[in-house]
Amino acid sequence: MEVAELGEQLLGAWGEYRKRSRKNASRPELHRDDTLPYTEHRERILEQLHLLAEEGATNLAFPKRVGGGDNPGANIAAFEELVLADPSLQIKAGVQWGLFGSAITQLGTEEHHDKWLPDVMSLKLPGAFAMTEQTHGSDVASIGTTATYDGDTQEWVINTPFRGAWKDYLGNAALHGKAAVVFAQLITQGMNHGVHAFFVPIRTDDGELLPGVQSEDDGVKGGLNGVDNGRLAFDYVRIPRTNLLNRYGDVAEDGAYSSPIENPARRFFTMLGTLVQGRVSLDGASTNAAKAALAIAVRYGNERRQFNSATPGEETVLLDYQLHQRRLLPHIATVYAQSFAHETLLKQFHGVFSGELDTPENREDLETLAAALKPMSTWKALDVLQECREACGGAGFLAENRIPLLRHDLDVYATFEGDNHILLQLVGKRLLADYAKQFKGLDQRQMAGKIAGQVASRIYSGSGLRRVGQTIIDFGQPARSVGWLRNPATQHELLSGRVETMIADIAGALRNASKLPKAEAAALFNEHQHELIEAARAHAELLQWEAFSDALEDIRDIPTKRVLTWLRDLFGLSLIEQHLAWYLYTGRISPQRGALVGKYVNRLVARLRTHVQDLVDAFGYDDPLLRAKIATGAEAERQAESREYYRVLRESGEAPRSEHEEFKKRRKR
Amino acid sequence: MEVAELGEQLLGAWGEYRKRSRKNASRPELHRDDTLPYTEHRERILEQLHLLAEEGATNLAFPKRVGGGDNPGANIAAFEELVLADPSLQIKAGVQWGLFGSAITQLGTEEHHDKWLPDVMSLKLPGAFAMTEQTHGSDVASIGTTATYDGDTQEWVINTPFRGAWKDYLGNAALHGKAAVVFAQLITQGMNHGVHAFFVPIRTDDGELLPGVQSEDDGVKGGLNGVDNGRLAFDYVRIPRTNLLNRYGDVAEDGAYSSPIENPARRFFTMLGTLVQGRVSLDGASTNAAKAALAIAVRYGNERRQFNSATPGEETVLLDYQLHQRRLLPHIATVYAQSFAHETLLKQFHGVFSGELDTPENREDLETLAAALKPMSTWKALDVLQECREACGGAGFLAENRIPLLRHDLDVYATFEGDNHILLQLVGKRLLADYAKQFKGLDQRQMAGKIAGQVASRIYSGSGLRRVGQTIIDFGQPARSVGWLRNPATQHELLSGRVETMIADIAGALRNASKLPKAEAAALFNEHQHELIEAARAHAELLQWEAFSDALEDIRDIPTKRVLTWLRDLFGLSLIEQHLAWYLYTGRISPQRGALVGKYVNRLVARLRTHVQDLVDAFGYDDPLLRAKIATGAEAERQAESREYYRVLRESGEAPRSEHEEFKKRRKR
Repeated sequence: MEVAELGEQLLGAWGEYRKRSRKNASRPELHRDDTLPYTEHRERILEQLHLLAEEGATNLAFPKRVGGGDNPGANIAAFEELVLADPSLQIKAGVQWGLFGSAITQLGTEEHHDKWLPDVMSLKLPGAFAMTEQTHGSDVASIGTTATYDGDTQEWVINTPFRGAWKDYLGNAALHGKAAVVFAQLITQGMNHGVHAFFVPIRTDDGELLPGVQSEDDGVKGGLNGVDNGRLAFDYVRIPRTNLLNRYGDVAEDGAYSSPIENPARRFFTMLGTLVQGRVSLDGASTNAAKAALAIAVRYGNERRQFNSATPGEETVLLDYQLHQRRLLPHIATVYAQSFAHETLLKQFHGVFSGELDTPENREDLETLAAALKPMSTWKALDVLQECREACGGAGFLAENRIPLLRHDLDVYATFEGDNHILLQLVGKRLLADYAKQFKGLDQRQMAGKIAGQVASRIYSGSGLRRVGQTIIDFGQPARSVGWLRNPATQHELLSGRVETMIADIAGALRNASKLPKAEAAALFNEHQHELIEAARAHAELLQWEAFSDALEDIRDIPTKRVLTWLRDLFGLSLIEQHLAWYLYTGRISPQRGALVGKYVNRLVARLRTHVQDLVDAFGYDDPLLRAKIATGAEAERQAESREYYRVLRESGEAPRSEHEEFKKRRKR
Repeated sequence: MEVAELGEQLLGAWGEYRKRSRKNASRPELHRDDTLPYTEHRERILEQLHLLAEEGATNLAFPKRVGGGDNPGANIAAFEELVLADPSLQIKAGVQWGLFGSAITQLGTEEHHDKWLPDVMSLKLPGAFAMTEQTHGSDVASIGTTATYDGDTQEWVINTPFRGAWKDYLGNAALHGKAAVVFAQLITQGMNHGVHAFFVPIRTDDGELLPGVQSEDDGVKGGLNGVDNGRLAFDYVRIPRTNLLNRYGDVAEDGAYSSPIENPARRFFTMLGTLVQGRVSLDGASTNAAKAALAIAVRYGNERRQFNSATPGEETVLLDYQLHQRRLLPHIATVYAQSFAHETLLKQFHGVFSGELDTPENREDLETLAAALKPMSTWKALDVLQECREACGGAGFLAENRIPLLRHDLDVYATFEGDNHILLQLVGKRLLADYAKQFKGLDQRQMAGKIAGQVASRIYSGSGLRRVGQTIIDFGQPARSVGWLRNPATQHELLSGRVETMIADIAGALRNASKLPKAEAAALFNEHQHELIEAARAHAELLQWEAFSDALEDIRDIPTKRVLTWLRDLFGLSLIEQHLAWYLYTGRISPQRGALVGKYVNRLVARLRTHVQDLVDAFGYDDPLLRAKIATGAEAERQAESREYYRVLRESGEAPRSEHEEFKKRRKR
């Protein structure tokens, strides 16, 4: 295998930026110190942020006019690699430059950029991103904070009307933030124009809260304890009219509201859509953390031995156990798929945000793609980190081996920047909408015909006719079945067919919803919520599989391509194995073929076993990035030392006899 | 529902002891302080241990002769409840009294009891349990530490011959332990008699390491940071001959070895078997932690609202979403099943260790049962804690809401006291052995007939004949299928049939293994390792289902029994849903019925939704035990306050108009 070449492919279009960021992540002064209490951890992270700012390492996304790089793709690529320094450092950087700074960039206009961005970039002005409230997280449109225009003084009055409207979980809010981008209901001339963003100073340069601003500390969290998350409330706090970030909505001195987007719902979603980069970057960062954990667990699993092997005096290497292969290899396959899918997402993101491909359709597709991939990779990272932790046994639980504390920190990635289930539901709704578009312009009869055709095809596959066909062809011929499963066209048909059928089924069940009273329509939708989210997941898996398959086309080295093709097959077959029940009861896979899926997965992991070290080496994480004592060769040294001890003892003739061995021999006689 | 009565049933045979222990776990001075750095957390835990010792709360398992309670079942029940004070406290108590003290009790004799147990009980003598080594965890028989008898001085010489033989991950080893029960290869008169346990002093009363003893600190861990885990090594450390814990093997002054158990392998497993209580107690403690997390998440999910509901001005309660029901209710069902199964296990444990039912068969069954249940509940606790954390969103990530730090601490339960996969493999091997016993005494022809019969039955079900039968009967009659699924006889047949068939299949595949060369036999076994572990899991699930079903018999209140029967059905159907592919491709469930399983689960969770608060209230955990801010009614207060704010605003006539609403109305025209 050409490990180096594969490594370059994994690094992707912004590989140089990733490498530079990895160098940063390798610097000891940017590393986590696990022994610090959370108060000191927070101070250390702030200092580290200053180090990054001094280098200008985090300016890439900002406009060139104010000293930035105007390179959104490179910025995200570099940001994602910081996770291996310390996820707290990554997320605090994300709060400062990715959320606070990005909101000013995306929602503000040039005057705002000139006024604040230089200080944001240099960290002279640390800030919070005050969107989420205690009682409204996912439903941003319903937040309670108000910004009411006072024409007499030409000021905004920012107010927190009740406890549930306190802003919460905000990085930089407990201690370090001097300002916040506050999302609030914009009210002027007696009209609520919906949620807009305002620049609100919150602390003096000495760290004193400004009049009317309250703050609470979120205290210790399940992870990311280097970030000073906290709460903010505003008691009729006044800010100048021009502190409204007014790209998508403005208020004149006389209080008249204007916006380039007439439809308030579309305006709201456009504003939120500019903040998609958080989701994009978490997709990449989670994939990186999962890669690191796999690199650690594979290195250890290749050195660690336990229980006697068939060779006398030798113990079995963990990765020679089928179970250990089964535990780690499908995760490696998924992480490759995620990595390639992420590159697609990042390119789409860069196209839109660099302006090169900025169309409403591309923006919408980008948001759907990010909403589909971010849940998959953030959840998968938690699964992978847990499996790797357990696969390393007690050693895996020690902080010196990195994995458990990475897992603590990554935990919250599943619910921040969009709760994973809510994001998948968005994807599901988009799929339903796209499905409905097929029928647009058709008259009643044509539509009925189209639906009937689909129902018929479902009954056809559900009745088992196709399945019986497979049974007759395959009977007693497992090789033929395996060939069928290995065929990428089969995998694609199975994965895409599942999405299409699930969406068609849900659409069919919901087709009369619009005619029902609101409560009944909501109840009907709710009855299919679980299925809809499953369909969205299936869609995301298909996208990952397609990205992996596309990436195979770019591999020139034949042996590498062969191994990666097995790995893609393992990814596809693992998905089919997970959803096998569905394929069986819809008749898309015959029972005979279904019974072979697991056996073929076993065969694939055994075949990939010899390549497993190469596969994780291609991630390109060396010691200064992994920093896990069990992944430094220490285990191999220990194993060698103990084997040598027993060898010398045996040869000395002074080894004690074994009661157990002698007892066994006596018994045999 | 009769919540109080159900609560008593869940408390089980040692309910009074559980209640007393819960009172302890409610005392603030025994609670975790999340803000402490790990060094101070360790000191706090030590102080807490002294508080427990002063009360005599932890003496229940020790012999009455030395001041104990001779009540092993009550001891474990009380121990399990400590998890809600602080899992570090629980585990440090477990190290001191459950491992160190228990090893002296179980492996030592009266002289040892009299000499050490009083100080162990009072905590005058804190100790470590030094079994695991860096390179040998699961394979205890292969540890490297040696204890060589020196007849001249009548002493044991304890030695760590190489780095990999350092004892590791031992609670009390880094700081507080003054002695250790050290497991080592017993060598006398040139013969290695296998692993035995020795009492070895390691520190002076002032905490100085004794000559020849080395210690290292394991440092920060993924959790349980109140326990001072560390490493120990011995450089030819000498202890008196009588420090051998000699219940199962002794050495006379002249160095002659003797044992009541002739077979060294059986002797080894007998010694290890006396330590089964760790596994038993982790099964119960994990179940308790999962119950607490569910109680928190359900309370919050019943108060928290998000997104508009069909009722104007109202938002939807989280638990009214199908997805939220789907996320939490099957876990509640599983935790009930675990709770009842644990009670069975605890009774069996008490029977054996109280001496009432102490037979070799009961011991063996107890060990298998513990090996089956401990992996299920420790893993499930991690899944439940994660799901509950995510179901509470950002709030779920705060330490003030308990769940994330409980998850950190419980993580290691999956690999300590026996790695979960290794335990399930033990269970699988036992199932294979039991299966083979059927053929004992049969001649070649009878055996062939028996096997042929089984293969035939497999082909029969695999060929789809039974399935086709179901299809014809059910066609277009989902009610009939649901009735079939709801029938406990069906559930039992499906769950038990799966175990039997899987084991028979593996036994069939391995039947010639004994005739193969060692390496080939090992390779053949390895090819079926994954299946064997799946079979063991299926067996454990069956045991849990049976325990749940048995427990239904004891419920007198009819409405309670009805709800609990639905919950049992949800448990059974969730298992069948998880393994549906297997049921489909073996032809045990028809595709038509298979397609209904998920829909019936949806229907069950909707039906149980109104009872969900009762179901978690029956766990009996009140505020001083849960100590989660979001589970105190605070969320309901916030919700009420914000609704009241909007009501007053509406009625004041001063509410701003909504651009969004007016835009929608204009559009409709």
